[in-house]
Amino acid sequence: MNAAAPILLTPGPLTTSERTRAAMMTDWGSWDGSFNALTARVCERLVAIANGTGSHVCVPLQGSGTFAVEAAIGTFVPRTGKVLVLVNGAYGKRLARICEALGRDHSVYETADDVPTTPEAVDGLLAADPAITHVGLIHCETSTGILNPLPEIAAVVARHGRGLIIDAMSSFGALPIDAAAVPFEALIAASGKCLEGVPGMGFVIARAEALDRAEGNSPSLALNLHDQHVYMQRTGQWRFTPPTHVVAALHEALLQYDEEGGLPARHAKYARNCEVLIRGMERLGLKSFLAPEIQAPIIVTFHAPSDPNYRFADFYAAVRDRGFVLYPGKLTQLETFRVGCIGHVESADMERAVEAVAEVFAELNITIL
Amino acid sequence: MNAAAPILLTPGPLTTSERTRAAMMTDWGSWDGSFNALTARVCERLVAIANGTGSHVCVPLQGSGTFAVEAAIGTFVPRTGKVLVLVNGAYGKRLARICEALGRDHSVYETADDVPTTPEAVDGLLAADPAITHVGLIHCETSTGILNPLPEIAAVVARHGRGLIIDAMSSFGALPIDAAAVPFEALIAASGKCLEGVPGMGFVIARAEALDRAEGNSPSLALNLHDQHVYMQRTGQWRFTPPTHVVAALHEALLQYDEEGGLPARHAKYARNCEVLIRGMERLGLKSFLAPEIQAPIIVTFHAPSDPNYRFADFYAAVRDRGFVLYPGKLTQLETFRVGCIGHVESADMERAVEAVAEVFAELNITIL
Repeated sequence: MNAAAPILLTPGPLTTSERTRAAMMTDWGSWDGSFNALTARVCERLVAIANGTGSHVCVPLQGSGTFAVEAAIGTFVPRTGKVLVLVNGAYGKRLARICEALGRDHSVYETADDVPTTPEAVDGLLAADPAITHVGLIHCETSTGILNPLPEIAAVVARHGRGLIIDAMSSFGALPIDAAAVPFEALIAASGKCLEGVPGMGFVIARAEALDRAEGNSPSLALNLHDQHVYMQRTGQWRFTPPTHVVAALHEALLQYDEEGGLPARHAKYARNCEVLIRGMERLGLKSFLAPEIQAPIIVTFHAPSDPNYRFADFYAAVRDRGFVLYPGKLTQLETFRVGCIGHVESADMERAVEAVAEVFAELNITIL
Repeated sequence: MNAAAPILLTPGPLTTSERTRAAMMTDWGSWDGSFNALTARVCERLVAIANGTGSHVCVPLQGSGTFAVEAAIGTFVPRTGKVLVLVNGAYGKRLARICEALGRDHSVYETADDVPTTPEAVDGLLAADPAITHVGLIHCETSTGILNPLPEIAAVVARHGRGLIIDAMSSFGALPIDAAAVPFEALIAASGKCLEGVPGMGFVIARAEALDRAEGNSPSLALNLHDQHVYMQRTGQWRFTPPTHVVAALHEALLQYDEEGGLPARHAKYARNCEVLIRGMERLGLKSFLAPEIQAPIIVTFHAPSDPNYRFADFYAAVRDRGFVLYPGKLTQLETFRVGCIGHVESADMERAVEAVAEVFAELNITIL
């Protein structure tokens, strides 16, 4: 245990519980039945969290969340398909770059960083371009914390008979997504986010029928979700060496998730964290970038102080010295910084983080207008 | 700690030291300077183990070793290139499947599972086909444990002016590979093998000049080693979320590797484990599949007893009950099983494993002819 380790207020990797980390103190054989059972239980729980039991399957994948996003695009979009990528931040742009790299035809619809995509816009775009087979949507854009209206957009995409691919990296497990009510082909998330595991694997919740149909699409061996799933169904094992300790940590994190009350409790905890954070920062005179109605309780972007004494690197280092790791902004036009609300942290931690920020402003002679 | 966890005698994931696992008890921020320093130290050490300091760089990659192999093929082989894949086992075949998936032209030269590729054969093949730009070689084939003559093949490939891509997954860190004497473009290995870290990341030791030249080759965003390297050089960070705990464990494992005497000591330990294992099994009447001169001290394939009472599943379960996880065979024509010699295990563990096998044979009424 490193008692001096700071609390991570970032979009992940995040602060995990000691119990979750302790699950990594065992070495598992990847061929062994006990490990296969661990994987099966994790997948079963992940599908249940999405309310997809019976209709959907979970395909875990080694690597970071972006690996799973690339795998989903490559697996679900046929080589002759076309993706409409909905962009209002860095992760939407990354999704378009993945289409580009894989040679998948695509068009981009971009709104400003603080403007959610509307279902009306998607409706018009799909009506205008019958070549579009799939829509790629970022549920919660980590680059600002903005929430896009997933259920409404999913309904429009389904009405047009197209497939929806959701990057739910920052939202899955904390914001409700009901696969029985929200039609999608694939939803992508990762171990080290709102489920509070450690980073090292992603997963895709896939409509079983869409995954079956996806055979032969993927331009990759390692990132082929169809083949990963078929092999796992047949053998109970991962196709290639799994990150055994990361899987064990996610398994333990999911047990705690359930014990603490599942999605409603996780959502409520992060909403409290977010509210305490924003109110506390407002007391210091710091404004959040997004309007409250489009702010997801995952990560908050704050305008940086305009005082010339403010430099992010110094601010970051001084807050870190007080035990909190913040995150840089990701907007090109505005000087901002970000603070995560997720992980094994409580509202009391957020209060202390606000205090630390106040102390640092005083120490560095930063005045907030 | 799970005191009941069995010892893994497999090709990985393997048994690690408690100190290595304990390094995963800290959560690291992936943007934080302290984590960047950890990554930099790991990469520096890995290049040094290959004696590539100054000429070569290390590009770490999220995911299993196979992800790094696919990344290396996609990054180093131009879209108009052609790969000669040298096959004498499952991992050679996998390398060919990767070329197939990525649409890279390739030809396969296959020898029997117990026959190493010869430099003479490679010489003839390269002379006959000037379209070949790269040669893909498995240093130690985990499917049997066979060692291919890397330095001799590398010399032939260099003489023909082609690029060599080495899958050194099972050998790196235990068998000497001197980048100053053995010409290659890329050498691939992973965290959870002879370095005795936990699984979850691969890495590629690349000749710097070959990596620079590889810009634009990769058909992937996530598996693009050129872009991964350029980004890391510029920022000190991984391009996408790193498996922070896996990196920390590898860092700790490398400290122990050095303290224990580096490569010569690791090689000697595994050689002792291998010798004790083979001698012990011979005492029981079990024959190893490979001739001693082509057996790498990494994993040993044994002929299964011909007694009809022998069934691998029962044998495996009974040996596991005694605290040792063995590994199934991977030969299609012969009934075999495998025992790994690598990991945080000593020759005394191998002695006890042999005893466990003897007890199980008695218990299951299996006679060895």
